[in-house]
Amino acid sequence: MSLVVQKYGGTSVGDAERILHVAARIAARAQDGNRVVAVVSAMGNSTDELHELALQVSQSPHPREMDVLLATGETRSSALLSMALDDLGCSAVSLSGAQAGIHTDAVHGRARIADINTTRIKQELSAGRVVIVAGFQGISEELDITTLGRGASDTTAVALAASLNADACEIYTDVAGIYSADPRVCPSARPLKDIGYDEMLELATTGAGVMHSRAVEIAALYDVEVLVMSSFDDSMLGTVIRVEATMEQASKVRGIAHQNHIAKITIRGVPDRPGIAAELFEPLAVAGVSVDTIVQNASVEDLTDMTFTLNQSDLEAAVQTVEASLPAIGASEVVTDADLGSVSIVGTGMATSPGYAALMFRTLHEHEINIELISTSEIRITCIVHADQVANAVGALHNAFELDRED
Amino acid sequence: MSLVVQKYGGTSVGDAERILHVAARIAARAQDGNRVVAVVSAMGNSTDELHELALQVSQSPHPREMDVLLATGETRSSALLSMALDDLGCSAVSLSGAQAGIHTDAVHGRARIADINTTRIKQELSAGRVVIVAGFQGISEELDITTLGRGASDTTAVALAASLNADACEIYTDVAGIYSADPRVCPSARPLKDIGYDEMLELATTGAGVMHSRAVEIAALYDVEVLVMSSFDDSMLGTVIRVEATMEQASKVRGIAHQNHIAKITIRGVPDRPGIAAELFEPLAVAGVSVDTIVQNASVEDLTDMTFTLNQSDLEAAVQTVEASLPAIGASEVVTDADLGSVSIVGTGMATSPGYAALMFRTLHEHEINIELISTSEIRITCIVHADQVANAVGALHNAFELDRED
Repeated sequence: MSLVVQKYGGTSVGDAERILHVAARIAARAQDGNRVVAVVSAMGNSTDELHELALQVSQSPHPREMDVLLATGETRSSALLSMALDDLGCSAVSLSGAQAGIHTDAVHGRARIADINTTRIKQELSAGRVVIVAGFQGISEELDITTLGRGASDTTAVALAASLNADACEIYTDVAGIYSADPRVCPSARPLKDIGYDEMLELATTGAGVMHSRAVEIAALYDVEVLVMSSFDDSMLGTVIRVEATMEQASKVRGIAHQNHIAKITIRGVPDRPGIAAELFEPLAVAGVSVDTIVQNASVEDLTDMTFTLNQSDLEAAVQTVEASLPAIGASEVVTDADLGSVSIVGTGMATSPGYAALMFRTLHEHEINIELISTSEIRITCIVHADQVANAVGALHNAFELDRED
Repeated sequence: MSLVVQKYGGTSVGDAERILHVAARIAARAQDGNRVVAVVSAMGNSTDELHELALQVSQSPHPREMDVLLATGETRSSALLSMALDDLGCSAVSLSGAQAGIHTDAVHGRARIADINTTRIKQELSAGRVVIVAGFQGISEELDITTLGRGASDTTAVALAASLNADACEIYTDVAGIYSADPRVCPSARPLKDIGYDEMLELATTGAGVMHSRAVEIAALYDVEVLVMSSFDDSMLGTVIRVEATMEQASKVRGIAHQNHIAKITIRGVPDRPGIAAELFEPLAVAGVSVDTIVQNASVEDLTDMTFTLNQSDLEAAVQTVEASLPAIGASEVVTDADLGSVSIVGTGMATSPGYAALMFRTLHEHEINIELISTSEIRITCIVHADQVANAVGALHNAFELDRED
């Protein structure tokens, strides 16, 4: 008898009709002789609505209470899905994060799983029940409710699959798998058959967005093969995320990721002396500004320019912080660009194949797309470009790297 | 330093603005040097909405899952109220029923409190925090979420006040206290200064509806004085429910209660032999029909008529059940009246003062209100009348017993 851990996202349980659809899927799976643990997200955009409600009663909602509030979303879907299954004659039980034994640290809003005590889940499975686990939530040592961060129901599912040593881990979403690029931006994008953990991680953190990056990290760490597929369309086979792509696909660009809402800050005339970076970035960290790529130009007459990118929403706070630091640092000027995005090519073996970078830059040049900033990792090259050229860049690169062709 | 247990109903926390209003009230009370434990209901009619949602995914929602679903309503208000208090600079913490140590039996949907472990509440109070407890919910020995039944946040509050040996227990609602009659029906009704537990219990069970009857029972059992008052209008002093009304008010009609949606079933020609009542009512109990007043007429030629009242919503099921029993019983006919209501006078010492009954019947007669059925208790006389005469009866009795005058 196989043990399957599934996860259904917010769109898949968005209303009563969809919950019934998911229940039918799970019941069929259970009737095929599988033991099923299903992790659910909150219905539709209910998490956003709870966020808004919180901001109506508090300017800066207490993180502990925000977790109590938000966790109710997943709890509701878990109860509804469980009662729908019971109605289909498929015995089921809903468990909160706490009941499912998901113990976390006490960092509210982005808690990390410390360990999972699967006793209750195993007990319910042995009693022949389908177990519905409220995703995204856990419990701290102080017995307080914690949440694992936005989109972290994926993390719950993968962590449970690892703890239970499940035979399969399936993430059901509203798209057909991991695409070679965002199909809303690039119509010729197609779902990949498989992808490596590292590649998936780069796609997730640079904006492909289908899967929570911590879930991918845990999958890599515990070697959990994850199938990502649509809960709406069974005809699509989905994408398997596994330890590495098949041999033929190693050393190949696998996907194009992109991100919007990027801003850039350049500080001109920074004295080129040791410790200057710390003086600049420590106050930003204190102000809670998360900095992405940092570039420092070669210095001319002991003065240099320092540029970094950040999320558009942090721009105002960052400029204020940097301007306050200017006199102490002795820099001359702050220049900002609020209207940027990024485009990345992702694939293993990138660092050892300089031809990829050359093709990327040439393609962008041919499409008259100016590159504002470049950053690279072992398996990724990212170019910062103007916001209105992101979609164009994604399409051009998808074409240049022949990603519309079958694997 | 006084310890105050408060309870705020669904209307009092119906939206963000009202939650902020309640937070301000609690903060003021805490700043006056009181330790405050506040129990909250779910916002507005969110419990009804969750019920409807459940019925969209399941014809008969599993009681365990229904409890998981419904309990999220109170959990949300508790988190929102707690974050609103923090924002006002008043340190607060929300606790679920489980965290508040409210242990119950496992009868989902109408669990009873087994015991309360106040360790965590006391710990939070000692740390200088206001404690917000999600009402209506508890936890079973199996660590499953239970709910205590509709309106049971009152019960949570009174039980906590008893366990914590609180100096005051205050139930905040959308009316100014316990009225001498329902003010929507009887405009001259006025809030009572105080009322005895038994009287309150009769008012609660015969439709005054301001307070959950189990809460009144617990208050009586543990001798908790309960103040019921409006959270919207501080100018009204509210009603104190206590061990007995003051001497002057004993042996006096204190209030007029009424109920709508009552139906009546009469079974004609029932053979007057032992065990006939059991044969008739046991199948009704099995069918889940709750029977109120039962009247059996004196028999004529060994045949009697048996009449009982019930909720209108149970009428159809009850008639089917009774008709199925007719052949076995040998009764001749079932007659129903679906359109009734009740009016009651409530006050201690009723049984020893026959003048009250006489005045009640005379008053109804003078207003040409026909009495369909009469039932009495130590402190209550109830007449079943036609639905369209209920309001008229309440007004007439309120006037006849001079309840519009000051205590």
